[in-house]
Amino acid sequence: MKIGISLLFIICAVLNMNAEDGHSLWLRNKNSVPVNVVCTTNSPTLSVARQELQEGWQGKAGATIVLSITKDKAIKNDGFKLSSRGIEANTKQGVLYGVYELLRRQQTGEAFKDEVCNPSYAVRVLNHWDNIDGTIERGYAGNSIFWRKGETAFEVTDKDKLLWQEYARANASVGINGTVLNNVNASPLMLSKQYLERVKAIAEVLRPYGIKTYLSIKFSSPALIGGLKTSDPLNPDVIKWWKDKTKEIYSIIPDFGGFLVKANSEGQPGPQDFGRTHADGANMLADALKPFGGIVMWRAFVYASNDKDRAKQAYNEFMPLDGKFRDNVIIQVKNGPIDFQPREPFSPLFGAMKKTSVMPEFQITQEYLGHSIHLVFLSPMWEECLQSDTYQEGQGSTVARCTDGSIFAQKYTAIAGVANVGLDANWCGHHFAQANWYAFGRLAWNNRLASETIADEWLKLTFGKTEPSADWTEHFLKPVKQMMLQSREAAVNYMMPLGFHHIFAAEHHYGPGPWWAPKGIRSDWTPPYYHKADTLGVGFDRTQTGSDAVEQYYEPLRSQLNDLKTCPEKYLLWFHHVSWDYKMQSGRSLWDEICYRYDSGLQQVRQFQKVWDGVQPYLDAERFGQVQQKLRNQCRNAQVWKDAGLLYFQQFSQRSIPLEIERPVYDLEFLIHGDSQSRNE
Amino acid sequence: MKIGISLLFIICAVLNMNAEDGHSLWLRNKNSVPVNVVCTTNSPTLSVARQELQEGWQGKAGATIVLSITKDKAIKNDGFKLSSRGIEANTKQGVLYGVYELLRRQQTGEAFKDEVCNPSYAVRVLNHWDNIDGTIERGYAGNSIFWRKGETAFEVTDKDKLLWQEYARANASVGINGTVLNNVNASPLMLSKQYLERVKAIAEVLRPYGIKTYLSIKFSSPALIGGLKTSDPLNPDVIKWWKDKTKEIYSIIPDFGGFLVKANSEGQPGPQDFGRTHADGANMLADALKPFGGIVMWRAFVYASNDKDRAKQAYNEFMPLDGKFRDNVIIQVKNGPIDFQPREPFSPLFGAMKKTSVMPEFQITQEYLGHSIHLVFLSPMWEECLQSDTYQEGQGSTVARCTDGSIFAQKYTAIAGVANVGLDANWCGHHFAQANWYAFGRLAWNNRLASETIADEWLKLTFGKTEPSADWTEHFLKPVKQMMLQSREAAVNYMMPLGFHHIFAAEHHYGPGPWWAPKGIRSDWTPPYYHKADTLGVGFDRTQTGSDAVEQYYEPLRSQLNDLKTCPEKYLLWFHHVSWDYKMQSGRSLWDEICYRYDSGLQQVRQFQKVWDGVQPYLDAERFGQVQQKLRNQCRNAQVWKDAGLLYFQQFSQRSIPLEIERPVYDLEFLIHGDSQSRNE
Repeated sequence: MKIGISLLFIICAVLNMNAEDGHSLWLRNKNSVPVNVVCTTNSPTLSVARQELQEGWQGKAGATIVLSITKDKAIKNDGFKLSSRGIEANTKQGVLYGVYELLRRQQTGEAFKDEVCNPSYAVRVLNHWDNIDGTIERGYAGNSIFWRKGETAFEVTDKDKLLWQEYARANASVGINGTVLNNVNASPLMLSKQYLERVKAIAEVLRPYGIKTYLSIKFSSPALIGGLKTSDPLNPDVIKWWKDKTKEIYSIIPDFGGFLVKANSEGQPGPQDFGRTHADGANMLADALKPFGGIVMWRAFVYASNDKDRAKQAYNEFMPLDGKFRDNVIIQVKNGPIDFQPREPFSPLFGAMKKTSVMPEFQITQEYLGHSIHLVFLSPMWEECLQSDTYQEGQGSTVARCTDGSIFAQKYTAIAGVANVGLDANWCGHHFAQANWYAFGRLAWNNRLASETIADEWLKLTFGKTEPSADWTEHFLKPVKQMMLQSREAAVNYMMPLGFHHIFAAEHHYGPGPWWAPKGIRSDWTPPYYHKADTLGVGFDRTQTGSDAVEQYYEPLRSQLNDLKTCPEKYLLWFHHVSWDYKMQSGRSLWDEICYRYDSGLQQVRQFQKVWDGVQPYLDAERFGQVQQKLRNQCRNAQVWKDAGLLYFQQFSQRSIPLEIERPVYDLEFLIHGDSQSRNE
Repeated sequence: MKIGISLLFIICAVLNMNAEDGHSLWLRNKNSVPVNVVCTTNSPTLSVARQELQEGWQGKAGATIVLSITKDKAIKNDGFKLSSRGIEANTKQGVLYGVYELLRRQQTGEAFKDEVCNPSYAVRVLNHWDNIDGTIERGYAGNSIFWRKGETAFEVTDKDKLLWQEYARANASVGINGTVLNNVNASPLMLSKQYLERVKAIAEVLRPYGIKTYLSIKFSSPALIGGLKTSDPLNPDVIKWWKDKTKEIYSIIPDFGGFLVKANSEGQPGPQDFGRTHADGANMLADALKPFGGIVMWRAFVYASNDKDRAKQAYNEFMPLDGKFRDNVIIQVKNGPIDFQPREPFSPLFGAMKKTSVMPEFQITQEYLGHSIHLVFLSPMWEECLQSDTYQEGQGSTVARCTDGSIFAQKYTAIAGVANVGLDANWCGHHFAQANWYAFGRLAWNNRLASETIADEWLKLTFGKTEPSADWTEHFLKPVKQMMLQSREAAVNYMMPLGFHHIFAAEHHYGPGPWWAPKGIRSDWTPPYYHKADTLGVGFDRTQTGSDAVEQYYEPLRSQLNDLKTCPEKYLLWFHHVSWDYKMQSGRSLWDEICYRYDSGLQQVRQFQKVWDGVQPYLDAERFGQVQQKLRNQCRNAQVWKDAGLLYFQQFSQRSIPLEIERPVYDLEFLIHGDSQSRNE
């Protein structure tokens, strides 16, 4: 008996070693057939390309594939040309991307034809909000893969290098070619020798995969670590300090990408501290980087506490500077005018800055979309933004076309995604959050891709078999893809439907807090600032008779948004203060519609649970169980959101929740003050 | 402005004084019309009767009503004869009960005809599990109205007396004529001078309302407070001590009712400690009480940890003693063989003890039925027990008829209800828990009453207007009555359907704990003892091939319960260990049926919420809001129960939850180990 039990333990231990932890992401194909790879040029990047082909080839056994560097004007940047012969590109990275594309098509069963594939953006970069102590701001998947504190902070282990390589490979496989290694709320120590040495070690691992490293800098670094009395960007000593520091960085990391800057925002220092403009600050850094080919990504995420409408401020502050930036400065603009909400209209800066390079910033980490607990596929949100028509240069002036060089000649085109990667075995906390990393890369490469295509690819790569059966397609792929595609709208419904925004609780931005407004806190950090509920109605009046934020949009959009009757209902409470009795397109009153939306969000999550439980036979127990558990938690939290929304706003609407709707199960007091209520309340 | 606000406060304060707190129970009618009451006899009880009539009369203005004491053989005990002339009874209490009946009929609009109304049981008694320190065992409505600790413990205030009077009136209005003032787990100090003096004060307030006082006694009192070396019931000193003590009690409280005894049960002392039988102990006390007309209510709630089936033990221990008890001893038997579960079959002692007086004990306080949080109308549960056919003396030998003297000649007939009354303003914690107090009284008076009738009466008296409109009847009375009548079955569904029992968590008996089995605890205090789940099936095999508890029931019931095919499904898992795949009457497997039942319980509570929210216009805001809040809590807890049931038993069944069913939202780990899991689990 004892031997039996010991054996059982051993078997369990072995099984556990092979347990599916999700670490392989969407890179799972190992069952290759022989392929003959011909490549006349030698380079680390091309070696990676060759190896990937050899390990992942799914085509005809013994086929010959030629990888070649060419000079083809039809190929842009790191683009490539796919043909039955092989892959041609103008750069080594282009060849690598071509290999990943080829393998993806083989694995997903997508048709293979001769074609040129060019990236939508030249710079496709992740922003890691990783602090040098290893924590991650808005990170929900463990600590940083780059930084740690303590005695081993600067030790580069084989384990580190393996993890960085896996990270680089994952990024390269979806076309990401840059990464900012540290938080935009940057420590000045980032630019000190010890940290730069670690950056060098990381960069060396990333380089063969075509990934450039970038750093966030603290604008006051010259004073903080340089011994200067000022960080004024027009001060010659400051200018020299940055030039010297930049030179030092390039001496350590020759292919360094450049700086990301959060300045004069949420307490961060910036040029305005010295009476200078954002352009003064950005240009000073740009001049230092210019000789080395580096760029400055300067964030437009600024707002002041005294402003009447936070949504207007980035535009107000940056538009007067249009045309005043160096050509290696790119203004990095969040998709919406506030802050990564579940739904925002696009930022009016897109298309409006015509003489300045502008890049979209998306948030992959789910700060406002359920952290790593909620299953929310973000691609539809980004697609919605990219396909929004600014009308700035006539119909069809989408955000995508306004930022990818199609309309405006930008020296650099770029797109950034705030990473959701951490030390968790599955990288992203939630297995389905991997899809958001994947989707960002795919949209950065091709900003016209449909979310459905991306979900389809990702599911096949992540959960599929080499030759998926009709049964798997029908009973796993189809329902799970549908769930993914509905998931963001569900989150909008149960969190903040119809244009509600920023009604989160306190600092954590997870649960509901429409009531949250402690004394003494700046009002634009409190939800009531955003929802403006009163007995007459609810919503932020941004029309011409309100804050006139609509003025920042171009006609005919401006008029469309300004008019209650033509404003899309999904943005209704963003732009209008609307009477509780206002008749919606559904025929319901606004109040009833709010109730229905909140409830439908909860019902959708319940439906997702059914979908997921239904696919149990089609995947490993580990990922099934973990996602099942997360969905349960999401459902509980959707209930909390729904109840908070209904019961809080009901105080103002003074109207009944339609009786057809399932009733709240929490009391408002409980939701506001937490679980001080006991079982025996 | 300041004056305005001050005024507002004053108005609010005044309104608050008139806020509906539920304290008036079902005794709300104050809009009387003049009536001429003729009563030739004088007594405190008849004064109460007169006053009630004068304050509550709803009949013809100026009518004359004669209250008279008569000697009518058609009238039994405290019964009465109602006629258009007035009320006749053999006792003063009978007259008072007639008055309450008359007023109830006027208020509920029930037809009035000449008739004799006799009580089903002579003794209709509440058991207060109130400790002398003021706490209440299994009390969920605040501390004791009788006892308190501290310096004022023995002070009798006007406030005390008013409360006791209100309590007495409420009881009398539904025919309750006795009350045991202290916990069956009794302190010996209860019989000390100071406490007896307080009992005297209470008895004086209760007496005019026809309520006798009783006390629970600790069997070892002679040793504990009497200075004796033993409490052996056959010891002459012990016998004398009890005689003296009884005499002392009667000298203080001349109409004292008698003793309630929990002996040799759950650690309480008893005659078996001295090698004597329950009969020896009970008879010794009965002999002491006999000269004064007092009775002994001796509880049959006994079980030992070493027994293979707790359900059998009371029967096994008491049946050999049948015929050995004095005629002023009544064996008090809980409705089911275990312990006040949401559903139990009736105790096999009913009808089996043919030469001993037996009385049913019901539990009004909702120890196992959601405390004062869940809305559960218990009348259907008691009705189910009372109408159960024991077959002991042929078909129709219901528990009701076996205990009320219809079949067996008992000197005393009695029924007990464990009270749910405390210091809470609304007496019972939950406004709807008042209905259980009411229902117990009504069933004690008439054990053939239908629960629907009782609910109808109670709702009209508690929420109705003097002349209820058709609108109120249709939109309040009808749906709320339906909700009440479904509420117990809903609780069975979400807590323990299909014969599950005692799968509660730990000590508090509120939430689910089918897994609960700490090391070292006696197994019959742990749920796995009761559900016996394994991979083959679930349920306690009490058939002839199992514990043979069915043997305690009389044919043809015994055979019916013994056979899986004929055992009512509501008792299935009580009597059988059933395969997970067993095909139920619904056509579903047992496992699927368990899932459906748990889910339907939750759905029912959600429906109750809708019903209640729908009646908001028909009642005061206070009671509406409080019940709404409780229902929300109940719904949350129904979800916890459902999830616990499904996920715990799924470990054994290894079967999927049918996909049509809403999925669990809690994880089993969370349910077992509490909220150690954080938001970011």
